[in-house]
Amino acid sequence: MTDEMFFEDYAVGTARETTGRTITEADVVLHAGQTGDFYPHHMDAEWCKTQPFGARMAHGTLVFSVGVGMTAGAINPHAMSYGYDRLRFVRPVFLNDTIRARVRVKDVRDDAKRPKHGIVVEALEVVNQRNETVLVAEHLLLVERREARTG
Amino acid sequence: MTDEMFFEDYAVGTARETTGRTITEADVVLHAGQTGDFYPHHMDAEWCKTQPFGARMAHGTLVFSVGVGMTAGAINPHAMSYGYDRLRFVRPVFLNDTIRARVRVKDVRDDAKRPKHGIVVEALEVVNQRNETVLVAEHLLLVERREARTG
Amino acid sequence: MTDEMFFEDYAVGTARETTGRTITEADVVLHAGQTGDFYPHHMDAEWCKTQPFGARMAHGTLVFSVGVGMTAGAINPHAMSYGYDRLRFVRPVFLNDTIRARVRVKDVRDDAKRPKHGIVVEALEVVNQRNETVLVAEHLLLVERREARTG
Amino acid sequence: MTDEMFFEDYAVGTARETTGRTITEADVVLHAGQTGDFYPHHMDAEWCKTQPFGARMAHGTLVFSVGVGMTAGAINPHAMSYGYDRLRFVRPVFLNDTIRARVRVKDVRDDAKRPKHGIVVEALEVVNQRNETVLVAEHLLLVERREARTG
Amino acid sequence: MTDEMFFEDYAVGTARETTGRTITEADVVLHAGQTGDFYPHHMDAEWCKTQPFGARMAHGTLVFSVGVGMTAGAINPHAMSYGYDRLRFVRPVFLNDTIRARVRVKDVRDDAKRPKHGIVVEALEVVNQRNETVLVAEHLLLVERREARTG
Amino acid sequence: MTDEMFFEDYAVGTARETTGRTITEADVVLHAGQTGDFYPHHMDAEWCKTQPFGARMAHGTLVFSVGVGMTAGAINPHAMSYGYDRLRFVRPVFLNDTIRARVRVKDVRDDAKRPKHGIVVEALEVVNQRNETVLVAEHLLLVERREARTG
Repeated sequence: MTDEMFFEDYAVGTARETTGRTITEADVVLHAGQTGDFYPHHMDAEWCKTQPFGARMAHGTLVFSVGVGMTAGAINPHAMSYGYDRLRFVRPVFLNDTIRARVRVKDVRDDAKRPKHGIVVEALEVVNQRNETVLVAEHLLLVERREARTG
Repeated sequence: MTDEMFFEDYAVGTARETTGRTITEADVVLHAGQTGDFYPHHMDAEWCKTQPFGARMAHGTLVFSVGVGMTAGAINPHAMSYGYDRLRFVRPVFLNDTIRARVRVKDVRDDAKRPKHGIVVEALEVVNQRNETVLVAEHLLLVERREARTG
Repeated sequence: MTDEMFFEDYAVGTARETTGRTITEADVVLHAGQTGDFYPHHMDAEWCKTQPFGARMAHGTLVFSVGVGMTAGAINPHAMSYGYDRLRFVRPVFLNDTIRARVRVKDVRDDAKRPKHGIVVEALEVVNQRNETVLVAEHLLLVERREARTG
Repeated sequence: MTDEMFFEDYAVGTARETTGRTITEADVVLHAGQTGDFYPHHMDAEWCKTQPFGARMAHGTLVFSVGVGMTAGAINPHAMSYGYDRLRFVRPVFLNDTIRARVRVKDVRDDAKRPKHGIVVEALEVVNQRNETVLVAEHLLLVERREARTG
Repeated sequence: MTDEMFFEDYAVGTARETTGRTITEADVVLHAGQTGDFYPHHMDAEWCKTQPFGARMAHGTLVFSVGVGMTAGAINPHAMSYGYDRLRFVRPVFLNDTIRARVRVKDVRDDAKRPKHGIVVEALEVVNQRNETVLVAEHLLLVERREARTG
Repeated sequence: MTDEMFFEDYAVGTARETTGRTITEADVVLHAGQTGDFYPHHMDAEWCKTQPFGARMAHGTLVFSVGVGMTAGAINPHAMSYGYDRLRFVRPVFLNDTIRARVRVKDVRDDAKRPKHGIVVEALEVVNQRNETVLVAEHLLLVERREARTG
């Protein structure tokens, strides 16, 4: 459950993929309840029928939260989540779509201010059951170095 | 509940602030249940006592989802959420911290590929009860223009 | 689990009392999530400290829903809930207050339009751990008669 | 988010209507869980098929709580909810029905005991996707007067 | 709501059956969220279609928890739950199956170490809408005797 | 996420331990809501103060479900859960106790009726933050053999 990795252990290109998860009406109801976002795009099946997209969609923050959560595997005590760049909602996720997440180490770079740490950039991609990309983001991890960078 | 705004109606500097919301143990339990992220940082009070941060923290995706959700007010049928840039988890949010969100129009710009739309960039800032910033992000909205851009 | 009672079987004055239930922060968070009511009276502990009432209060609809739910015992297939009169929120219920519900048959009366049914009025009272009344209402039940009323 | 209104500012006839919300199986499961009311009318799809109404129905307290919650908009610090009169469950709400709420100021009247306040009566009506009334109630608000009533 | 029974009051063969409850997608999502078990057997509708069982199944612990919960009726202050023997998941419960629970007193026996108590063994059987057994277990109750056993 | 193991790969004595999880009031409220068990032992803080055990306790089925869920790691497509023997609630789990689960392969044995499978018995032990055992059970897994047993 714990997998110790230092900055030097991350190799660009390393990738993993999660199992799938069907995004259900219950997920959307619970997410509306957690966030307070009851927009009719998510909650009003009748109104959605009258719109171009045609059916209830999951909240962007739901797809992001579940996508990120699915990638939570072994704990690395030397890494901490720092933020995300270029988060994009590429396609809607409708109720009963099934999503999976892919993570690939995209970049490893020095952190100018922190010689004892480096930054690992993981590309997160969430896809649906037709293997279409629905969300992308770049996850920034601050990871301890085995040995501090000098110079 | 609906507030129609075209791209031309957004003015840089316009700002609003939400009411507050206390992030509770129940929120964290529900978010773990929604995302499947049961890391001890969020779920194990005993282990947290042994760590430098000292107490259970909310998931970054919870703070982000609630922060975004709190800003969901009137629906603008001419705007759609496009993504987020520079999302950063600036400080931890602990159980029983109370957060508020601030939104400020930071930039309005043309969209090179879409002459009928423009991009509105809203700066999102989530603060705690001591007015300390806990999360920032830039929200990108794709908004219809009243009149298509020419040239 | 089923307890068949006809209109003629209800006697004014018959009373019952439920076990207690502590209204928790989780209940309030779940009720906000179900109803979309995130008013700071229920959700913002910091703001509540600055108010005369001093602490987060349960939603009126939560106290009512739980109070009614606690009285749901045996099913009477001959009765149906018709509505409520004089529902009053007498005192606030704060987080960690423990409530019980009391039901007493207050009145049995003919239904002018329905000779095969009668109306049973149950007085519902919800009390807290200090035995103070927090909510009252009159529950109207439409109950089949064993024998239709004539004249 | 705050909209200050004194008693004198309420005008009989003023009306508003909410967006819609589909009542889902998840809502009913969550409401059963919140209230402890697991009656087969709400929870047993097989048994419901054998009954005249034919399908699972939402709890009356769920329709009421969501109906009230949907009307929670701007906060008026000068008003407080006092209770409800003539709450009636007019028609069943089945799973996947979509409801909206309408509120209309029905009456404004003096409060005999409180010269500094008045009572505003709002008619609440919840309708389904066929515009049929499913629930009605009269909401009583105790509202501060701008100037105390004399005589 | 309380039904006092001593060890001597339990008679082998006494049986009761609960009302039914449809196991919903929301139940499975909530149980995954409570337990952290997001196995694709429960959560991934697409993958399940490729498997011999063909569709999402409820967690065994969900069927057990609901089956036990449905039998919770009157409280007997003289009995306490001690454990379960021979818990078997006999058939899968799929989403939208409707289950009921049956309890039958199977055995009453002395407790070698506790002369003031006896052990009551209840056979628990959970069946689906086709009356097929889906789960069985033997519930062990430790119950006070009216009079301590001598010799 | 998948870890293929045949019957022959299980070795008696192999053990693993999970991270910890604090059992919260929210967990108990959600479990009551899922199971319909609202006994005052779990839900009525005031009544619990008057009892020998002194404070609200988690449901036995909650401790069992979470204990089992915490052990859900890699998926073994060759194994299926068959049932549990000797499940015992050894000590109460109070709100805010933190539990961990330990699993140890206790026995591997032939299945008289199924030559292509064997039975693996895992001892499950759930402990609290004082390392006291709160629940034990024996988990029975039906596991495919790499080679069918002959004779």
